Amino acid sequence: MKGIRVRSKVWLEVDGTPFLGDGRERLLRLIFSTGSISAAAREMGISYRRAWAQLESMEKLLSYPLATREKGGARKGETVLTTEALRLLERFDTLKKGVREFVDDKFEEFH
Amino acid sequence: MKGIRVRSKVWLEVDGTPFLGDGRERLLRLIFSTGSISAAAREMGISYRRAWAQLESMEKLLSYPLATREKGGARKGETVLTTEALRLLERFDTLKKGVREFVDDKFEEFH
Repeated sequence: MKGIRVRSKVWLEVDGTPFLGDGRERLLRLIFSTGSISAAAREMGISYRRAWAQLESMEKLLSYPLATREKGGARKGETVLTTEALRLLERFDTLKKGVREFVDDKFEEFH
Repeated sequence: MKGIRVRSKVWLEVDGTPFLGDGRERLLRLIFSTGSISAAAREMGISYRRAWAQLESMEKLLSYPLATREKGGARKGETVLTTEALRLLERFDTLKKGVREFVDDKFEEFH
């Protein structure tokens, strides 16, 4: 067989509803790096409203906040991710890397 | 965290073009079980033309036939899968099961 590649995709669901895949992972990471939902939305080419709605739907499903506003300090006014959000991102990343490595191993079988 | 489930999807590509995922796998398996592209298409709720086009595009990418017409014998006139097609299906199935098992193991981490 010639040049066959195995591709994979991983996402998370709560009660059958998808809430975290590559797109939303990127949104959360951009909020983390920019400190702003609107800057993250701009970077992704989506509206602020849409980014905010995605964040809200994730929080609703998880029943805990993923982002909060800094009330004081040097980052006052910025949107920062909660510890739970960072933990979720880290776990999702580990999962994705694990699946990719597993698939890359299996991929040899297709040559 | 409550009831988070990990979901995954696997598919195959040749030179960056997807050619085998869950849908086409089902098409091939239905051709195998029914001995007919039109019966397989009917079962999937797609047109004969569409099923045939999917089969043809897979064969084009792989450069070998996946299905042939029986010229004689008890199954004369039936569409049968080639050895290569059966091998491909078997490998794809093994891959999918492997990924699912791997993901189910990882899934524990999300509770």
